[in-house]
Amino acid sequence: MNAEILSVGTELLLGNVANTDAQTISEGLSMLGIDVFYHTVVGDNPARVKEAVAIARGRAEIIITTGGLGPTYDDLTKQALAEAFGKKLVFDERSAGRVRAWFGRVAGHTMTENNLQQAYLPEGCEIFDNDWGTAPGCAFFADGVHVLMLPGPPRECYAMFTHRALPYLRKLQDAVIFSRSLRIFGQGESAVESRLRARMEEMKNPSLAPYAKEGEVMLRVTAKAPTEAEAKALVDPVVSDVAAFLGNIVYGTDVNSLEERVFQLLREKGMTLAAAESCTGGLLSEHFTNLPGASDVFLGGVVAYTNPVKEALLGVPHETLEAFGPVSRETAVSMAEGARARLGADIALSVTGFAGPDGDEVGRVYTALAAPDGVFCRRLKLGTGRSRIRTMAALHALDMARRYLTGLPVEIWAE
Amino acid sequence: MNAEILSVGTELLLGNVANTDAQTISEGLSMLGIDVFYHTVVGDNPARVKEAVAIARGRAEIIITTGGLGPTYDDLTKQALAEAFGKKLVFDERSAGRVRAWFGRVAGHTMTENNLQQAYLPEGCEIFDNDWGTAPGCAFFADGVHVLMLPGPPRECYAMFTHRALPYLRKLQDAVIFSRSLRIFGQGESAVESRLRARMEEMKNPSLAPYAKEGEVMLRVTAKAPTEAEAKALVDPVVSDVAAFLGNIVYGTDVNSLEERVFQLLREKGMTLAAAESCTGGLLSEHFTNLPGASDVFLGGVVAYTNPVKEALLGVPHETLEAFGPVSRETAVSMAEGARARLGADIALSVTGFAGPDGDEVGRVYTALAAPDGVFCRRLKLGTGRSRIRTMAALHALDMARRYLTGLPVEIWAE
Repeated sequence: MNAEILSVGTELLLGNVANTDAQTISEGLSMLGIDVFYHTVVGDNPARVKEAVAIARGRAEIIITTGGLGPTYDDLTKQALAEAFGKKLVFDERSAGRVRAWFGRVAGHTMTENNLQQAYLPEGCEIFDNDWGTAPGCAFFADGVHVLMLPGPPRECYAMFTHRALPYLRKLQDAVIFSRSLRIFGQGESAVESRLRARMEEMKNPSLAPYAKEGEVMLRVTAKAPTEAEAKALVDPVVSDVAAFLGNIVYGTDVNSLEERVFQLLREKGMTLAAAESCTGGLLSEHFTNLPGASDVFLGGVVAYTNPVKEALLGVPHETLEAFGPVSRETAVSMAEGARARLGADIALSVTGFAGPDGDEVGRVYTALAAPDGVFCRRLKLGTGRSRIRTMAALHALDMARRYLTGLPVEIWAE
Repeated sequence: MNAEILSVGTELLLGNVANTDAQTISEGLSMLGIDVFYHTVVGDNPARVKEAVAIARGRAEIIITTGGLGPTYDDLTKQALAEAFGKKLVFDERSAGRVRAWFGRVAGHTMTENNLQQAYLPEGCEIFDNDWGTAPGCAFFADGVHVLMLPGPPRECYAMFTHRALPYLRKLQDAVIFSRSLRIFGQGESAVESRLRARMEEMKNPSLAPYAKEGEVMLRVTAKAPTEAEAKALVDPVVSDVAAFLGNIVYGTDVNSLEERVFQLLREKGMTLAAAESCTGGLLSEHFTNLPGASDVFLGGVVAYTNPVKEALLGVPHETLEAFGPVSRETAVSMAEGARARLGADIALSVTGFAGPDGDEVGRVYTALAAPDGVFCRRLKLGTGRSRIRTMAALHALDMARRYLTGLPVEIWAE
């Protein structure tokens, strides 16, 4: 089956926001094995929405709309879709009650009557209750096309797609799609792809697909089978085979990020971590504390953006800074040791470097790891771009921790 | 004039990336006063690209394509557009030379012959030299439509749009568009909009438009006139009038963020800042250090994610933590005072709170500001959602600094 995602919202055409709804939905459909052939974005304009719907129904078997629901938009999307498929909008008492209840729960908002417009839904549709906002979504099948309508705000759209649309779409399929992911740090997408090319070409079910994420690579192994158990039985051996073939650049399976993997490893071992950051300026701490439950393993960190702070809070000797400068092996090591001692952590990571934008040495970064059995250091050359350098530096520090905690060599020394 | 943005790339339909190219271009066109009516995304499939081009040329006066250039895609986009408008692709020796030179400059890459495909361009087009990658872009006018083609990688697309497409589009216009922005923290988009409704309705040139950004609001004032001086003369009094009308929730004009405004104020006054973070876990420091030149005013910070770290690194008395708990006015104040003293900063900000996901008190946050003339505190109730709470908490801390540095009252006490 093939799908088109039709997003309604002038804010997208003004460039105020990127169309992350379309991305979220596309990712989900791709995992279900449903091909997305088009994304269309149109503004809050009835004539153009109708035109876009007419085009979509002529070329897609599934149309998923986002946005244009709710009173501010005069329920533009629902009206256009209902009209295109010759359906009336009928008042649904239960949905009206849910809209009223929502306003009752959300303090400080009084419901205006136009909100009840949201309870008008295409006759005979399946209603998608919205537990994350006011406008309900819905789905119907007509003239050979499945139409699904979801709200536009990204948080609502994500939740409604995951908990309402996905179950609806799964029922349309005669097979189960199951996938697992491998995460890689230390080799680029094209290098990983060329190593796996033979496997990727010969495999159809399960399929093997690499995706570049910022600074790392994700490999997804996906199989289709009549039951989940059968699909899983196809996927699991490929995951093991590919993981073994690629070796220790694979940092984890079915994890979301390198920091999550380090978090898991620390928790398994009952160890704690601290951070000392210069050029990453809090990014490393921020990555960790973004994980729910972070305080189980992450004690805290110091952002030492100037030399006096490196001395006062991390105990980096004045002489070290004088003799080697703030961006040096010696300073990185001393920062990591200082953080480990002062925060009382089992291991500590440090980052110091030149993130730019100016200077000859932009991209030169040192990361260090202090542990009970010694201290380790990486010297890196991370190219240009302030934000990219900071991201990569934080990933390298995390990779040191991951490798240390799994007994692998951790040092890198780039000229 | 109205435009359609046609993005070619299977990675968009798979949901690997969001269509940030369309956002970038839409934002630029909107500032030029060119209406964008549609975004279309299509995969690397010749038949569907052709179909999308046929639809776009029937409804748009300007078509801007992104992606599908370069050897990997068989120059899909160029072929489809050239064919649709009856143009031949002709070899451009100069562009071929530039492609060869690019490979000469970029270490580690050898040019394969298929790269010279990129030097075939529609006859009679204006060539957009690509200084940021290999594939040149181009523009031509045919059958009443302006067609502009840009490469897909976001960094290249942004640079090519800014430095090549924008000058081309400006030449088409008989007027100059000039705009300025006001930034607001402390009131939501709908509240700001309702206060400004009368002004927004009566004003056409300049126009006044609010945009919700995460936790804050941006107002853009845009005018169109024969010269930039005339457009500016229309915009400036409106900016002053609206700023005066909205009062001190306007934190700045023509700045990019609250941290940038605080950075400016600190620099003007020759003052330094430090941070002590618990629930924001490094976010506040990260915001500051993301600004080039941050080290002029930002000394560093402590991420104190556990009580012992609050004691050891910030000097929060054990008794304070025992008696009032880590999320309290007393702890927030002590954290800010500790950071100010230990980092030797003129002012220090602190944040402590419950970011969740679990617990009865999720959303309860205290932020404090320690300054030479005293210490100030906010007690906040920030709703739910870990990431949203962290973002809002950091913004409140920054807002305290902004208000303190401009002599405004800084405290808030939410029950």
